[in-house]
Amino acid sequence: MVSDRPLKVALLGCGVVGSQVARLMTTHADDLAARIGAPVELAGVAVRRPAKARGGVAPHLVTSDAAGLVGRGDIDVVVELIGGIEPARGLINAAFDAGASVVTANKALLAQDGPALHAAAEEHGADLYFEAAVAGAIPLLRPLRESLAGDKVNRVLGIVNGTTNFILDRMESSGAGYGEALEEATALGYAEADPTADVEGFDAAAKAAILAGIAFHTRVRLDDVHREGITEVTAADIASARKMGCTVKLLAICERAEDGRSVTARVHPAMIPLGHPLASVREAYNAVFVEADAAGQLMFYGPGAGGAPTASAVLGDLVAACRNKLGGGRGPGESAYAALPVSPMGEVVTRYHISLDVVDKPGVLAQCATVFADHGVSIDTVRQTGKDGEAQLVVVTHRAPDAALSGTVEALRRMDTVHGVASIMRVEGE
Amino acid sequence: MVSDRPLKVALLGCGVVGSQVARLMTTHADDLAARIGAPVELAGVAVRRPAKARGGVAPHLVTSDAAGLVGRGDIDVVVELIGGIEPARGLINAAFDAGASVVTANKALLAQDGPALHAAAEEHGADLYFEAAVAGAIPLLRPLRESLAGDKVNRVLGIVNGTTNFILDRMESSGAGYGEALEEATALGYAEADPTADVEGFDAAAKAAILAGIAFHTRVRLDDVHREGITEVTAADIASARKMGCTVKLLAICERAEDGRSVTARVHPAMIPLGHPLASVREAYNAVFVEADAAGQLMFYGPGAGGAPTASAVLGDLVAACRNKLGGGRGPGESAYAALPVSPMGEVVTRYHISLDVVDKPGVLAQCATVFADHGVSIDTVRQTGKDGEAQLVVVTHRAPDAALSGTVEALRRMDTVHGVASIMRVEGE
Repeated sequence: MVSDRPLKVALLGCGVVGSQVARLMTTHADDLAARIGAPVELAGVAVRRPAKARGGVAPHLVTSDAAGLVGRGDIDVVVELIGGIEPARGLINAAFDAGASVVTANKALLAQDGPALHAAAEEHGADLYFEAAVAGAIPLLRPLRESLAGDKVNRVLGIVNGTTNFILDRMESSGAGYGEALEEATALGYAEADPTADVEGFDAAAKAAILAGIAFHTRVRLDDVHREGITEVTAADIASARKMGCTVKLLAICERAEDGRSVTARVHPAMIPLGHPLASVREAYNAVFVEADAAGQLMFYGPGAGGAPTASAVLGDLVAACRNKLGGGRGPGESAYAALPVSPMGEVVTRYHISLDVVDKPGVLAQCATVFADHGVSIDTVRQTGKDGEAQLVVVTHRAPDAALSGTVEALRRMDTVHGVASIMRVEGE
Repeated sequence: MVSDRPLKVALLGCGVVGSQVARLMTTHADDLAARIGAPVELAGVAVRRPAKARGGVAPHLVTSDAAGLVGRGDIDVVVELIGGIEPARGLINAAFDAGASVVTANKALLAQDGPALHAAAEEHGADLYFEAAVAGAIPLLRPLRESLAGDKVNRVLGIVNGTTNFILDRMESSGAGYGEALEEATALGYAEADPTADVEGFDAAAKAAILAGIAFHTRVRLDDVHREGITEVTAADIASARKMGCTVKLLAICERAEDGRSVTARVHPAMIPLGHPLASVREAYNAVFVEADAAGQLMFYGPGAGGAPTASAVLGDLVAACRNKLGGGRGPGESAYAALPVSPMGEVVTRYHISLDVVDKPGVLAQCATVFADHGVSIDTVRQTGKDGEAQLVVVTHRAPDAALSGTVEALRRMDTVHGVASIMRVEGE
C-alpha cells in the first residue's frame, strides 16, 4: 500500500532541532514511508549561511533562498524551524499559497498571529501542525485538541520552560542564588547567551497563550497572559518555601473561571507543596497537568526541549500532514468558537506567601492582620520571628482575588511599622 | 461552518461507561457540534434489558435489538461498550458493513481479533478508534499512534489496571494481606464480584498486547503476552520490597530487544524503587512510561477507569470519527508492517528478588551462590538472617535472561539445604 510518488518536504532552518529532523528523516526513512504510505523526501534545506557544514544533509539540498524553496511548486509540507516573527511568517504564508501544509515549532509566531495563520491554512485546505511549539517532545497539543475534544477542560497547569526549571532546580538543590544558577545553566547550554525570553517568562507566556486557546476553544493573545519571570526569585524565597514544605517553580496556569464565562492565563513563579507531582520535575524537564470535567486530572511529563525530543514532535506532525496529503482530510483547525473573554490578573483567585520586615513590638501582628481583613483577605497562617528589635512576619493567605492580595501588599508597604516587604509569592497546587 | 445534517450515533451498551457517554452527549451537545462542525444525535441505545430505567436516555431511544439499530442504514458512528467477544464482534462487523465508523473500549476483543477488525474497517473506508480500551481517560494510544509516528519506541512500561493497583496500594499502606485488600476493593466498587480478569492479569495482558502492537508496529496476540497476576503476592513480599526501598506494582512491560529484531510483552508483579514515579501511583490510577529514541522518556498519568473518565476517551474518539465522516480522510489504521517476532518470556532480560528458607549452617550461602554462578546469573546483593537453626537468604540478582533466572530457582529448590523458596519477584524500573 506504499505509494511510489514521494512526498516532498522543505526544511526551513537547520539548527539544533532542524538538523535532528533532517537526521531522523534519513535514519527512519523506511519506517516513515511505511507509516505514511509513501516515501518522504527532503527536497531542500534553507539556511542563512549555506557555507556552514550541515552534518548529514547533502550539500546540493542546502540553499539560502528560503522563498524560492517554498515557492518552487512541488513541496507538500514545509517544516518551519527558523523561529521568530519574520521571515518565518512570510514563508509560512507563502507555503500555504503554494498549496503546502506547514509544521512549525514557532511558539512566538503562533502566540502573536495564530488566528491569521489558521485562517490561511483553512483557506487553502492545508494543515497547520505545531505540537513542538509547546513542551517539546511531550504529546500535549494533540491530546488537548483531539483526545479531549469531547470533554470540558477547566485548568491547565504546568512547567513549560526547561531553562527556568533548571535554574530553580539548581537554586533549590545547591542553595545558590539566581545569578550563580543562571551562569551554570548558560555554561551547560540550558540557557542562551541572552536568556531574556526564558528567564523573563516570555517563552512560557507564549506557550500559555497557545495552551489556553486550545484548552478553552477561544482566542488568547500573548498580551492577555500575565507574565512574571524568575529574575527576582532569591535564595531566601526558596529557603522560605522549603520551610513551609514547598518548592518554587515557574508555572504556566490557564484557568476557566468558576462560572465558566471567562478564562485567565498567567505565568509566574509560585510555591508548590513538595508532595505535588510538579515539585519533583527536575532539571530541564517539563510536566503539565490538565483537569477536565469527565477525564479528571491528567499529567503529561517528558523532555521539554532539546534537538532530538523537539524533532520527535515535529516528525509526528510531519507524518500526520503527509497522511492527510495522501488520504485527504485535514487535521483539526483553529477552534475558537467559545469566544470567552480573558480576565485580567486581578480577577485570578490565588493564595499569597508574604514575608514582611516589621518593627518588633507588641501589636504589630494585630495591625497587619487588620490590613488583610480590611481587604477581604483571610489569613491561613502567620509565623513571627524576631531579633534585635526587628521581626519578620511570614503570612500565608487563603484564596482571594489577586487584586485584593496586591491591594493588601500596597497597604502593608505604607505602614510605619512595616520596614519592607521582603518577598511575595503565589502559592499553587493544592 | 456548522452543517445542518446531524451525525447519528448508535450506542451499544449503557452501563457505567455507556450511561456517561449518553449524558455527556447531551450536556456537551453544543460544544460537540461546534468542534465537529455538525450536531451529533444519539439515534439509539441498545441494551439487554430495555425495561430497566436509563437515567437521562429518552425511553423511545432504548432498544434490545442491537443488530437492528446498527443495520438501520443511517448510523454514522457505532459506539460499542458491551465488552467481551460476542455479540460485540458481530455488531462491529455489521457496523462496518453498514458504512459506519466504530468507537470501542473493548480491549479483550481488540487483543484477540484486532487485525480482522482493522481489516474490516479498512475494507469499508471506515474508522476504528479505541483510545478507551487502554488506560481509561489517559490519552495514550493517540500519542503513540500519531504524536510518536516519526519516532522509534523502545519500551512501554506502566500500571494499566486500576483494580490491582488499588489492592497492592492497600497492602502497602495498611500491611493487609491480599485477601483482605481484595475484600476492601470489592466493597468500594474497585473490584468486580468475579475479580479474575483483573487480579489474574488478563485485563492488563490484553492492554499490553494492544500497546505492544501499536508501539512496535507489529502484531502481538494475547497469547504472546506472558501473564502473572497478583493473587500470590503476600504481605511478606511487600514488607521485603520495602526493606530494599521498593514497592510492588503490577506492571505491563513491552520491550524491543536490544538488537531491534524482536519484541516482548509481559504482565507481572514487580518491585520498583520508591523513588520511581510509578511507585507513587496510588489507588486506582494508571500511569505509563514510554521510551523512544528521539523523544526520550515520556510519562502519561491519570484515571485508568471509571464511567466519566472512560467516557471522556470515548467522546474524543467520537469527535474524531465524526470529523472524518464530515471532512473525508481517515484516522490511522493498523500499522503492523514491522512484523517483528514476539520472543518468549525466557528471553526477557530482567532482575530477580528471591527469598530462600535455608538450613542455618556455614557454607550454605556459598552453595547457593554457586548455583547462581552455574546458571550465569550474577548476584547484586545477598542478605542473610537466621534464627533457631533456620536462616533466610534474600538474593537480588543483576540483569539476566528470565530463563536463566528461573533455571536458577529450579536448581535451588532441588537443594537439600534449601527448605523452600518463600518468594520470587522481578525487579524493574531502574
